[in-house]
Amino acid sequence: MFDYKLLAALAAVIEQGGFERAAQALGLSQSAVSQRIKLLEARVGQPVLLRATPPAPTEIGRLLLNHVQQVRLLERDLQDQVPALDEGGLPERLRIALNADSLATWWARAVGDFCAERGLLLDLVVEDQDVGLKRMRAGDVAGCVCAGDKPVAGARCIPLGAMRYRALASPAFVARHFAAGVTAAALARAPAIVFGPDDQLQHRFFAMLGGEGGFIHHLCPSSEGFVRLTSGGFGWGLVPEQQVRGELERGELVELLPGRVIDVPLYWHHWRNGGELLASLTRHLEKYTGRWLVQV
Amino acid sequence: MFDYKLLAALAAVIEQGGFERAAQALGLSQSAVSQRIKLLEARVGQPVLLRATPPAPTEIGRLLLNHVQQVRLLERDLQDQVPALDEGGLPERLRIALNADSLATWWARAVGDFCAERGLLLDLVVEDQDVGLKRMRAGDVAGCVCAGDKPVAGARCIPLGAMRYRALASPAFVARHFAAGVTAAALARAPAIVFGPDDQLQHRFFAMLGGEGGFIHHLCPSSEGFVRLTSGGFGWGLVPEQQVRGELERGELVELLPGRVIDVPLYWHHWRNGGELLASLTRHLEKYTGRWLVQV
Repeated sequence: MFDYKLLAALAAVIEQGGFERAAQALGLSQSAVSQRIKLLEARVGQPVLLRATPPAPTEIGRLLLNHVQQVRLLERDLQDQVPALDEGGLPERLRIALNADSLATWWARAVGDFCAERGLLLDLVVEDQDVGLKRMRAGDVAGCVCAGDKPVAGARCIPLGAMRYRALASPAFVARHFAAGVTAAALARAPAIVFGPDDQLQHRFFAMLGGEGGFIHHLCPSSEGFVRLTSGGFGWGLVPEQQVRGELERGELVELLPGRVIDVPLYWHHWRNGGELLASLTRHLEKYTGRWLVQV
Repeated sequence: MFDYKLLAALAAVIEQGGFERAAQALGLSQSAVSQRIKLLEARVGQPVLLRATPPAPTEIGRLLLNHVQQVRLLERDLQDQVPALDEGGLPERLRIALNADSLATWWARAVGDFCAERGLLLDLVVEDQDVGLKRMRAGDVAGCVCAGDKPVAGARCIPLGAMRYRALASPAFVARHFAAGVTAAALARAPAIVFGPDDQLQHRFFAMLGGEGGFIHHLCPSSEGFVRLTSGGFGWGLVPEQQVRGELERGELVELLPGRVIDVPLYWHHWRNGGELLASLTRHLEKYTGRWLVQV
């Protein structure tokens, strides 16, 4: 079998973001942690870590981390029956990828009780759909919330409901750019705000109105920043309605075309054999997420 | 001189996130854009782009992009005098790296008027300090807001003021974990929320109370997500006070130790010869940012 002392050192260096903190977490000296990593590298015959700040796993390092995470999940299932087997008594962690807008809105409300009850710690990774599913495929995360509905090999995927987006801007921005109405021609000339290259929502809205080609835009890869830029009058953009209830009520943001929404369905991807904890989280999401999302 | 038609094609592919949208933005066919990229690669003798989704620049591609951006900024200075020289009439863009908490709080308010008046579009990149300054050094961004006060070669750096952080948690979390007071021992057992491996704020607070070693924590690399997890009772964490005025007023979040703040000074790094637009933005930030930050 593998030497799990070495693998635990690797996991700690990555999870803690450095050798010093890994040593603290494991209750070891820093040189003991270095020694374990070197021994691990001698065994696998190649580096498992890039010595950057913070350290990053190499490709083989990533495979080993994935393996450690799966083993921990399986150990967790046994723990209730054989608690004495557990060496550290550290709480369990799950690494989960999710889209920025979910993290900015419903995620915490949907899983807060579950995490508190089970003593579960989350390593959240904010990724758009393609990268999130790539991380699932690489075994780098145990679950992924995204808009893709094709499960990767070894994983299942369940529908969660949809996030409802509305096209919004500040009243001053609307007065300045859409005095003659919100038309494709007016949209083409008014700056939009786009989350990143994968964000097609503004393009879809533009196309809904018959717009063709491109439009000028700011790029802002942050959910909160997106709302700040929108209410600050930088441009128009599609925003999850539940993120800006206050701004809409206070009139700091207004809809470009009231009622023209875009619903983005979301799915929960999770390993099929990810252990009991992941299965419970899946049941919890299946049961409660509907409260926070639109059923389509 | 360089062939700027080829360089503009490269810039468009990166800025638009793909060949199709680059072609739309340039008013060319997609094959014409591909042709230009191939010609550029033939000239420099190596690939300038990784054909990923979205395409990413190679190292030499990044140097060329940097050059295009600098040339554009210099062109912009001439434009008032010789507007006819400008081919496209596209608005000017600045690529700026900033920390997530600035983007989630004061940034939009501080530069909104400036961008609207000058018709400036922003390509924002959310990076922590080390990566932000690395991007400055690589010439990938024209400016950077971060906590580092050492300018990179060819750049200047001015102080902007500080962001004030308070250690917060939900009332239920405080009742559950700190019924006997907020001590280092209690903190060591209560889950914290940490933004990422570079986020030392929770460690500093823990050390202020005499804590040693590590503590259990969630990882949440999103400013908005951080606030959601904090108010959702997942853990305690240091949050910019201006981001949670509402939550504090409504009692959804409470301070662990009222008055024990951590101020993080911020600096604006910018190219010394970045053209008139960047210089104006710098003057604007110098003049107005103080309103939104604490003067220390």
